[in-house]
Amino acid sequence: MNPIYLDYAASTPLKKEVLDKMLPHMTAHYGNASSIHSFGRKQNQTVDQSRRLLAKLINGSYDEIYFVSGGTEADNWALKGIAESYQEKGKHIIVSNIEHPAVLNTAKALEEKGYEITYLEADAEGLISLEALKEAIRKDTILVSIMFVNNEIGTIQDIKSIGQLCREREIIFHTDAVQAFGYINIDVKDLNIDLMSMSSHKIYGPTGIGGLYIRKGIKIKSLLDGGAQERKRRAGTHHVSGIVGFSEAAKLRYENLNVLNDEMGKKRNYLLESLKKNIDIKVNGHINRHPGSLNILIKDIKGDSLLMNLDLAGIAVSAGSACSSGSINPSHVLLAIGLSKEEAKASIRMTIGDMTSYEELDYVVEKLTEIVTRLRN
Amino acid sequence: MNPIYLDYAASTPLKKEVLDKMLPHMTAHYGNASSIHSFGRKQNQTVDQSRRLLAKLINGSYDEIYFVSGGTEADNWALKGIAESYQEKGKHIIVSNIEHPAVLNTAKALEEKGYEITYLEADAEGLISLEALKEAIRKDTILVSIMFVNNEIGTIQDIKSIGQLCREREIIFHTDAVQAFGYINIDVKDLNIDLMSMSSHKIYGPTGIGGLYIRKGIKIKSLLDGGAQERKRRAGTHHVSGIVGFSEAAKLRYENLNVLNDEMGKKRNYLLESLKKNIDIKVNGHINRHPGSLNILIKDIKGDSLLMNLDLAGIAVSAGSACSSGSINPSHVLLAIGLSKEEAKASIRMTIGDMTSYEELDYVVEKLTEIVTRLRN
Repeated sequence: MNPIYLDYAASTPLKKEVLDKMLPHMTAHYGNASSIHSFGRKQNQTVDQSRRLLAKLINGSYDEIYFVSGGTEADNWALKGIAESYQEKGKHIIVSNIEHPAVLNTAKALEEKGYEITYLEADAEGLISLEALKEAIRKDTILVSIMFVNNEIGTIQDIKSIGQLCREREIIFHTDAVQAFGYINIDVKDLNIDLMSMSSHKIYGPTGIGGLYIRKGIKIKSLLDGGAQERKRRAGTHHVSGIVGFSEAAKLRYENLNVLNDEMGKKRNYLLESLKKNIDIKVNGHINRHPGSLNILIKDIKGDSLLMNLDLAGIAVSAGSACSSGSINPSHVLLAIGLSKEEAKASIRMTIGDMTSYEELDYVVEKLTEIVTRLRN
Repeated sequence: MNPIYLDYAASTPLKKEVLDKMLPHMTAHYGNASSIHSFGRKQNQTVDQSRRLLAKLINGSYDEIYFVSGGTEADNWALKGIAESYQEKGKHIIVSNIEHPAVLNTAKALEEKGYEITYLEADAEGLISLEALKEAIRKDTILVSIMFVNNEIGTIQDIKSIGQLCREREIIFHTDAVQAFGYINIDVKDLNIDLMSMSSHKIYGPTGIGGLYIRKGIKIKSLLDGGAQERKRRAGTHHVSGIVGFSEAAKLRYENLNVLNDEMGKKRNYLLESLKKNIDIKVNGHINRHPGSLNILIKDIKGDSLLMNLDLAGIAVSAGSACSSGSINPSHVLLAIGLSKEEAKASIRMTIGDMTSYEELDYVVEKLTEIVTRLRN
């Protein structure tokens, strides 16, 4: 059997339909989208079409979508840009302790610059308490940044309540929606979202492109200064083929959202139920989670050898997020929801994608059972 | 005749050989380059190969090449990162007054944060005086940033002398080489370059990718915090297909550098000489300039109507850089080298590329002559 990919939360393959849409913009159409001649204007129209498409998908306006290089840039821009723009009002920022490193390490960088960060603690299932958020809010709080869907355990936050609370208290609310966009219906107005990070390569689009939604009226300093692109807020030549692919991938996923999510959820549950029959496991995370996400704790086992053995068997899963892998430390998310270091290391994340087949899942169950039995002996 | 593209300095079409190299990384190969499973390791090996290739081309080391989203990010990172890392030593930075907006506007952003910027004045041909640089250097100067090749007039700076001076004075030297990389042999050691910005879409590679060379030993704060990518200095999932295309494009251009540059220079000179026979023009810039660059002042004419008429005739040229177009202001570079506002507006930039044909140039000469004659009457 070919190697099996169960790491769709780390990155997804590019869909053929998306590549087909991109190719004309890597061949026939070229030129700088900022140029005013016909080549440039055509590129600019293409960028604008993608922008309108993305805006519509989240019920935002055309002029509230900003193209960036990916989720990490979006998170960095949101936090650093808001921090700088609103420092007169205060220097206190609230994030959760299960955020992606792009938010957590940006928060740490801001701490070094004199900002004060409150790290809200997630509960055992990865949920942030609204009460705790209320208590954490101060007069000098300028920003709350809580991720929509956790990348490791898939837990979906109550973004609507968080957004409402922030709006009432007149605090800017950013959500890292990298794992939510394309998988959950998002209405930025209904959810009271002020800023939202999106990524393309998590939804079967190309790498190197993402977006930041910025609600009209929000002030934000630029992270990348230079040319007048993106309403003078984000300089740099437009990555047109990437932008086309990003919007097409988003469109494809939202057009078929329910069907795709249902299939994904069924496969995920099939994998979980099949594994349960053979091995003693515990699911990390909340029941209300990303339909493709399965993070399990396998008792009495060491995580490192598990991953290695799975890899040798041609099965790609992960210990935590890709962005923190290579590190020998256990997942900060699993520790945050109360697992011990040993439990965190004995946990694996398997994420199902639109291309996952039941045959692949059967093979995974067979191999994982074999490996666990062997390692336990 | 098909529309004619003479704006290669703004952006170049993707070469077919480059696209062919990229395609497997948009289809067969996927997964996050930071993942430790086989999919991720393969991606990571691909990134590493590209990094080695690029390093070799500029006589740098493998671990001195950092992938970023493009030239603008490279410039922003270089200036902001060095400013923050060396602020204890001083807060004085020297740039030229003909830099790209990505450097100039970043310098302005730093000014707002309490840094002091000296803007060195270019001479009538766009050269920076070494004497003026010597005089501008102070005890608290931490960084000199002078572009290698100007994007509007093509003037090539004496980077070697500037680099040597900075090294002697122990000041960090950054050069925006976006218009030089792929067109000029660059040996970062010989030239004493500490940081160098590179872009892919200026050398027939894909958009959305570029590089920053950072010499070993240079401290630099991250611009994008997050995951541990790029030796923990630049977070964000690798744009693998872009990285592959970038390095391939660079390789192709450097492998054939002399032949390609000779052809380009011949075409440029052919265009210039042909135009001279028909119209009274003056070349803006230095005789030692980018082989594809031709910026001319057409006397007694208004620039706006010229560009519009050329566009209607299917010829794409530019008034200044793409990044500042759309703006009604005359080019800051042309003003800096002493042109009046009227002269700057009556100047156009025509940049030749590897795909330019003599037939196209003949058509341009014919049409431009017609238009100028009409506009002058």
